[in-house]
Amino acid sequence: MKAVVKTEKKRGAEVLNVPVPKIKDDEILVKVKAAAICGTDLHIYVWNKWAEEKIHPPQIMGHEFAGEVVETGKEVKRIKKGDYISAETHISCGHCYQCLTGHPEVCENLKILGVSRDGAFAEYIAIPEKIAWKNPENLPVEFAAIQEPLGNAVDTVLAEDVAGKTVAITGVGPIGLLAVGVARASGATKIIVSDLSDYHLEIAKKMGADVAVNAGKENFKEAVFEETDGLGVDVGLEMSGSGKALNDLLSVMTPGGRVSLLGLFGEDFVPVSLNDNVIFKKLRIYGITGRRIFQTWVIVSRLLSSGRLDVSPVITHKFKLEDFEKGMKLMEEKKSGKVILYP
Amino acid sequence: MKAVVKTEKKRGAEVLNVPVPKIKDDEILVKVKAAAICGTDLHIYVWNKWAEEKIHPPQIMGHEFAGEVVETGKEVKRIKKGDYISAETHISCGHCYQCLTGHPEVCENLKILGVSRDGAFAEYIAIPEKIAWKNPENLPVEFAAIQEPLGNAVDTVLAEDVAGKTVAITGVGPIGLLAVGVARASGATKIIVSDLSDYHLEIAKKMGADVAVNAGKENFKEAVFEETDGLGVDVGLEMSGSGKALNDLLSVMTPGGRVSLLGLFGEDFVPVSLNDNVIFKKLRIYGITGRRIFQTWVIVSRLLSSGRLDVSPVITHKFKLEDFEKGMKLMEEKKSGKVILYP
Amino acid sequence: MKAVVKTEKKRGAEVLNVPVPKIKDDEILVKVKAAAICGTDLHIYVWNKWAEEKIHPPQIMGHEFAGEVVETGKEVKRIKKGDYISAETHISCGHCYQCLTGHPEVCENLKILGVSRDGAFAEYIAIPEKIAWKNPENLPVEFAAIQEPLGNAVDTVLAEDVAGKTVAITGVGPIGLLAVGVARASGATKIIVSDLSDYHLEIAKKMGADVAVNAGKENFKEAVFEETDGLGVDVGLEMSGSGKALNDLLSVMTPGGRVSLLGLFGEDFVPVSLNDNVIFKKLRIYGITGRRIFQTWVIVSRLLSSGRLDVSPVITHKFKLEDFEKGMKLMEEKKSGKVILYP
Amino acid sequence: MKAVVKTEKKRGAEVLNVPVPKIKDDEILVKVKAAAICGTDLHIYVWNKWAEEKIHPPQIMGHEFAGEVVETGKEVKRIKKGDYISAETHISCGHCYQCLTGHPEVCENLKILGVSRDGAFAEYIAIPEKIAWKNPENLPVEFAAIQEPLGNAVDTVLAEDVAGKTVAITGVGPIGLLAVGVARASGATKIIVSDLSDYHLEIAKKMGADVAVNAGKENFKEAVFEETDGLGVDVGLEMSGSGKALNDLLSVMTPGGRVSLLGLFGEDFVPVSLNDNVIFKKLRIYGITGRRIFQTWVIVSRLLSSGRLDVSPVITHKFKLEDFEKGMKLMEEKKSGKVILYP
Repeated sequence: MKAVVKTEKKRGAEVLNVPVPKIKDDEILVKVKAAAICGTDLHIYVWNKWAEEKIHPPQIMGHEFAGEVVETGKEVKRIKKGDYISAETHISCGHCYQCLTGHPEVCENLKILGVSRDGAFAEYIAIPEKIAWKNPENLPVEFAAIQEPLGNAVDTVLAEDVAGKTVAITGVGPIGLLAVGVARASGATKIIVSDLSDYHLEIAKKMGADVAVNAGKENFKEAVFEETDGLGVDVGLEMSGSGKALNDLLSVMTPGGRVSLLGLFGEDFVPVSLNDNVIFKKLRIYGITGRRIFQTWVIVSRLLSSGRLDVSPVITHKFKLEDFEKGMKLMEEKKSGKVILYP
Repeated sequence: MKAVVKTEKKRGAEVLNVPVPKIKDDEILVKVKAAAICGTDLHIYVWNKWAEEKIHPPQIMGHEFAGEVVETGKEVKRIKKGDYISAETHISCGHCYQCLTGHPEVCENLKILGVSRDGAFAEYIAIPEKIAWKNPENLPVEFAAIQEPLGNAVDTVLAEDVAGKTVAITGVGPIGLLAVGVARASGATKIIVSDLSDYHLEIAKKMGADVAVNAGKENFKEAVFEETDGLGVDVGLEMSGSGKALNDLLSVMTPGGRVSLLGLFGEDFVPVSLNDNVIFKKLRIYGITGRRIFQTWVIVSRLLSSGRLDVSPVITHKFKLEDFEKGMKLMEEKKSGKVILYP
Repeated sequence: MKAVVKTEKKRGAEVLNVPVPKIKDDEILVKVKAAAICGTDLHIYVWNKWAEEKIHPPQIMGHEFAGEVVETGKEVKRIKKGDYISAETHISCGHCYQCLTGHPEVCENLKILGVSRDGAFAEYIAIPEKIAWKNPENLPVEFAAIQEPLGNAVDTVLAEDVAGKTVAITGVGPIGLLAVGVARASGATKIIVSDLSDYHLEIAKKMGADVAVNAGKENFKEAVFEETDGLGVDVGLEMSGSGKALNDLLSVMTPGGRVSLLGLFGEDFVPVSLNDNVIFKKLRIYGITGRRIFQTWVIVSRLLSSGRLDVSPVITHKFKLEDFEKGMKLMEEKKSGKVILYP
Repeated sequence: MKAVVKTEKKRGAEVLNVPVPKIKDDEILVKVKAAAICGTDLHIYVWNKWAEEKIHPPQIMGHEFAGEVVETGKEVKRIKKGDYISAETHISCGHCYQCLTGHPEVCENLKILGVSRDGAFAEYIAIPEKIAWKNPENLPVEFAAIQEPLGNAVDTVLAEDVAGKTVAITGVGPIGLLAVGVARASGATKIIVSDLSDYHLEIAKKMGADVAVNAGKENFKEAVFEETDGLGVDVGLEMSGSGKALNDLLSVMTPGGRVSLLGLFGEDFVPVSLNDNVIFKKLRIYGITGRRIFQTWVIVSRLLSSGRLDVSPVITHKFKLEDFEKGMKLMEEKKSGKVILYP
């Protein structure tokens, strides 16, 4: 089968012909209908420091996908041949404290699809049954393929209710854009976003942002206070990974507000205005990673299949699998939303 | 000034000329622009048992309204002459355990506008500053006038988050209809309603209900299970006051689901299927009364002024104050949504 | 091996010699050190209507126990030979909506140890690895054996925080008694209990109840209001299964309070004072069943092993397995707390 | 009357004879029975940078106290002459967004007793009725006087339930010591504290700490992991104001855990390990300031008056008002818990 393989410990990846994977007793084989490129894939492609530590070539890339089950291992019970599925990418151990107490998303022995094992940029992928998620028949494969990052957006936005709330989002890369849509669909009544890219800000408006601020040209703080009658926002979503953006966001939070942190920062230690903007403001701050398995998937699936959330504006490019480098290039230049690949 | 006055301890009410009310030091005088008829007003009009116990004629009726402040008492600080306001109708004591701990909506010494004191079906109304709520300028008076019952709907729907959830609502009288809109605006992905009135069910669809069941003709339980792949609903909102509807609702809840109870029942003791449908299902049940002051008002105001929630379909009739009996008749015949009166 | 076997579809059970169970690949074999008699066991013993429907003799009784793992199936990973364990008794399917969304305790395909399959009143028991819970070495076997019902008590008490709260508990049978201890250990500042048995009320005082009311002789409602300066209690725990007790409890709740329902009622439909005591009081009511797997077990294990909670007063009798009928007799006469059996 | 007055914009304060304060219509006059020295008082006494900005001498110092009401203004309704009271020290405006939505503790126009207006280190103090809190008769004045800081401890500890949880506290100055007691009384099953002062660590043990680590001599991180079987703690309470302590605390949190931040930091921007120890761990972090008015006071009052919480070990010194400088000296040298002054 064709697959995008990270073959060497340097920038790049190759489309190769490789054997169709063999499944274990607790696994299923899935014919991939569509896959999407994640920022993580780009890290692996460009071979940054994180990739150097985590990736052991040769390995098939990719972890966001949807497809059809074509074979099931003999211990597999829930999933059937012919099922239309996507997959959680975090494979939990099932035995640690977090797994035993309902939080496999922070399992201490996590393995990750396309990082710890072969991924989805291929005609077929083998995955453990436990991470398979059944899609409704009516869900387009492109939407089904981006449920995993949409799950990040859902957990970031809905860490607490947003209905009737004002929301600021710093950073509207692909997941930030999905977050705009989730906030809008969930009743947020004013959504103010900031980014450095006009391209992404334009998509944010299509997804439902009321106000889009180019933080490189305009004053984000002033904009938020103006748009909220001087109150600041109830909800802050940090999705940029910028320390400056974080502190700007904290400074426009209304006292008693809530912040979710999803963006990963460039530095290990980020200077944070704790006294004035966290403690005296009595904020609640939630670190967000992965998504709840499968609580979040239920929300994601329903938002999409009900049509309440339309993610079309975020899906900006579609390529054949062989043309994956076009997608990588667009991602690297920050000139895309989600890029879909078809094997 | 003109006012609708309950003059006698029997069915009916009269439009009379009465003096403009005088305000106390902590009160404000409001020129009423629009008022809305509540089910409570109908109880007072028809003089049912509850009214007999609570109402001491002569008294001006009505408590849902919007208007302009024309005079302020000398202790009044927050509200200014010229402010465009509506009002919470529950006047809390400020001194009891509930008031001191953030729950004035269940104050043990509650007084109620239009019940314990003169109301809003008049050209002017005097109210304590503490219950006044400032409206944004762009809010139509008809919408502003129904924020109080919309607050009931918001507290019923949003007792927990509904984004990505399936919702069943038993009873879509005026507040139930508003609840449909709130659930829809807040991201509920399937809304199934039941009622005995096709008139109300039609409005429910306009407000965003996905499925409308006439429980007198169709099988509500079957409909819910069919629409939810046999799972039942995550969220149940009892807004009918019918014991049968409540137990039907409990029987279609998915285990682990949440129910809000707003409808008041005809009987003091309602037989409830506790073992099978509450305990073994591990439901969470919330009694809802009044609304949070002013947490709920913030949500209500924003949903309306942002346009996220359009309550137009619920406002079915508009009359001059003098024609209030037309509204009462429609309410009594269950042939209306909210009825607006203009003094 | 020796085992207490329900051999016939009528009152009674027998101590028989039966083969040691064989384990499947995902199961473990446990040498039972101590077991405890549950109310469910009594139902099976006396052969009530529930038992008639659920139990298929011959079957080994019992599900509350602690013991040592002596053999593990080849797919078993988390549990090792020699581990000192107890077990969750609810065996979830792992595939249904509730299981996939973190609530196996309300799995729609639940199987129950000692009900759906052979139980723990025996020298050995085979259980699936997935329900095994490892105990700390320092935990006495008698305490370890009653963690399952203690889990019910923990979920009932701690459905919301009780620190600094006033608590009323209706019904202090064995699980109610454990609930008293949990409430006390968790910071409840006044605990008022009611029961019809002076025997149980005496134990309740030892477990930390501040006020014990014999509802057959004294006025429970008056007692609660007197002990709470007329406010009523913040937290109500219904553990009696009596409709009268439930309504008495609801009537002494402070507005805005929280109620947990654990006791199963004698009737399918229980008349409940919904208007006055649930809706107008804005109560939150939680149905409680089973316990969270394993969130609740963590709390239980720590409360016991830390010594914060001493359950000794609830363990009133200890017998050899062969003498199990002495325990059944005491349970039936309501003259015991928890009864321990040693194989 | 005698009073401790900050007379000049430099280190120090004087005991002077000043007029008994006159009350406004909404105020009460209280004869002070006992007062306690807060860290804030020390800041004012030593005249640090914060004091320079906030304090306008001459002003009477002190804000933690208990006393008897000897006079009430004519608008005062809830409080009566003869009442035994303490007081919230945050005087909210009642009109801002936070006040209107149930969070006066983060009012944007807060005034503070002993900071914005004359305080309690005097024979009499005038306070607005709205901040008065009635004490039960049985509460010793020394305990009643420290309810305000105990409220900080309660909000820090009980931001979420701690029953059955493991807790680490960095910093056991007076409020940290109270937090130990609150955590212990509320069911925390392992409490590990760190500080640089053996004096405070000794008191922490008396308050219920299971493990006391001198972070200047011992390895806090190793200690926590050893005491928690390598899991880290469920709950972290930062009460030191040290950035190093904060990051140490974050590094010993179990994934999915909760952190409360009360200690104010020396620097405006504190470097925080966000990626590894907040985001990937999915922590919940709560800024804590003031206390809920009066939700927290209810908890505080009940914990004390029920005897569930004994704060005696924290009250280390008692002086006559005239000897207040002895207390200031001890506080400055970190050789005291709470210091009580008697006018």
